[in-house]
Amino acid sequence: MIILGIDPGIAIVGYGVVNFDKGKYNVLDYGVITTDKDLKTPERLVLIEKGLIQLIEKYNPDCIAIEELFFQTNRKTAIVVAEARGVLLLTVQKYCKQLFEYTPLQIKQAVTGYGGADKKQVQYMVKTLLNLKQIPKPDDAADALAAAITCGQVNRLNGMFRV
Amino acid sequence: MIILGIDPGIAIVGYGVVNFDKGKYNVLDYGVITTDKDLKTPERLVLIEKGLIQLIEKYNPDCIAIEELFFQTNRKTAIVVAEARGVLLLTVQKYCKQLFEYTPLQIKQAVTGYGGADKKQVQYMVKTLLNLKQIPKPDDAADALAAAITCGQVNRLNGMFRV
Repeated sequence: MIILGIDPGIAIVGYGVVNFDKGKYNVLDYGVITTDKDLKTPERLVLIEKGLIQLIEKYNPDCIAIEELFFQTNRKTAIVVAEARGVLLLTVQKYCKQLFEYTPLQIKQAVTGYGGADKKQVQYMVKTLLNLKQIPKPDDAADALAAAITCGQVNRLNGMFRV
Repeated sequence: MIILGIDPGIAIVGYGVVNFDKGKYNVLDYGVITTDKDLKTPERLVLIEKGLIQLIEKYNPDCIAIEELFFQTNRKTAIVVAEARGVLLLTVQKYCKQLFEYTPLQIKQAVTGYGGADKKQVQYMVKTLLNLKQIPKPDDAADALAAAITCGQVNRLNGMFRV
């Protein structure tokens, strides 16, 4: 099962692609879609849509996992990130029917087994579960891989507890 | 000049189409795009995109005016409305290059000449400027027409003060 994880943003959208098979993860790709801050928001949204379509066409994921927005203190940033997330949701809905949304708490819980885990613990577990030599960089890509892992873990647990 | 005004939302997107020629407005259409609250957000976003594309194809507007988000106290609503607005911005950018964004204050100022005007005063001026017998309903459509008028007024003022 190929899973594409996404960490939403307007300047940086993190992505991570993993193949999850028989309880094991194999990383296919990870990185970021970036948009220039000098561009207007609508232009940046077009670039984000294009970047995501390219990833979907390249890896043809079975499902896509996207992090829910944690409300930020900066209102203006929160609105523009939500605008970008709207474009991501639209694109996933149009090009890949299996969409899962997870809160930051659910991701921490699924990746580390502990909802109170900090960013470093999550990143360490991403590295370990994916059998990588180093923690993936930048943070946005690591967060996207964490979302992809969450999708795999939830899927595995559902399978284990299915009657 | 054909102007399409948009009032963003997730359950209701208001729209208003006017022809602005020699300082006079002629209403071509107004109404709302609605999405069922029982649908998931990504499904609703697809409907919003479709509805806007249909309007653009039907009226081929020279420019599109969209209201900026006024930050709401309800955080969850604010995020989902921003997600819908992201889809609207993306679609305008892709299908109609002339996009104008106005704050609620700018719209009040342009339509009534007074930034402190209340909703009823704005609606009354929309009715008067568009030479309608009644205030357009629902409010979302009236707000969209106000955004379209703002685009016309700004355009006219720019013309008057051009050297």
